[in-house]
Amino acid sequence: MTSPDPLLETDFMREMLRQVRAMDSYGILDGKNADELLSPFVLTREDRANIPLIGDPDAEIIARVSAFYNAIAVLIEKECGQMAVPLVHLSHEGFGRVLVTVGKLVVLDRPLRDVHRFGFESFSKMKTEADKQLALATELVGRYPEVARL
Amino acid sequence: MTSPDPLLETDFMREMLRQVRAMDSYGILDGKNADELLSPFVLTREDRANIPLIGDPDAEIIARVSAFYNAIAVLIEKECGQMAVPLVHLSHEGFGRVLVTVGKLVVLDRPLRDVHRFGFESFSKMKTEADKQLALATELVGRYPEVARL
Repeated sequence: MTSPDPLLETDFMREMLRQVRAMDSYGILDGKNADELLSPFVLTREDRANIPLIGDPDAEIIARVSAFYNAIAVLIEKECGQMAVPLVHLSHEGFGRVLVTVGKLVVLDRPLRDVHRFGFESFSKMKTEADKQLALATELVGRYPEVARL
Repeated sequence: MTSPDPLLETDFMREMLRQVRAMDSYGILDGKNADELLSPFVLTREDRANIPLIGDPDAEIIARVSAFYNAIAVLIEKECGQMAVPLVHLSHEGFGRVLVTVGKLVVLDRPLRDVHRFGFESFSKMKTEADKQLALATELVGRYPEVARL
């Protein structure tokens, strides 16, 4: 047995796990460990190269994108003590937009592209990306607290 | 021939028409007049009573909801001179949320319910609703210009 990855003990990765488990209505993932549950979020360069450039994202990938941004929203909420509402909007062929709002403030707003190839090179890269988004969001809430409270 | 409704000459109703025509990729609606093109947006109490309480919205109704909020976004943009981005998000059974953002400011944010029964009692009621949303949105942009410019 390998020693558990300390990354998996971070707030973000714990929340990711919670999100993935919450989506598992039928208990298909029961008994799997953290590493197994989160491994679909990792896509090496090689994996990515093997996925066609254009494709429709399936329900599983859409759930993954939602899990990622939901987890970020939960951390934003913890950090600033106000409700953070995520909204993942996808049109055909994996194009779309993800928003997180706190009050009337848009604290995260990103275009989504090539969602059928959604993934990160490693857990570490995934967490770095989430931390970056979290920092930007909380900075915005700190700068415009009045709008965030609306 | 009836005299044209002065309502149809307003900015909002003209924009509604533009939206409806823009969605008509196959020219099915060519040759129809404004009244005919916009009549699907009118749902009398009687019409509404005849629609089941629970239902899945079809593509046509979703297009109508989008047309309505797109038109409001266009007017917000005209009014405040900055890009207003609408986002209509629907899940199953016609529940969802519509947002319009200007910069990092959420200028319109409404839950959507019973979208399969989307409609207004009259053109006048539809315009009143749009005017109300427009006034709230521009008031917000006026109050937080810095956030709207982000």
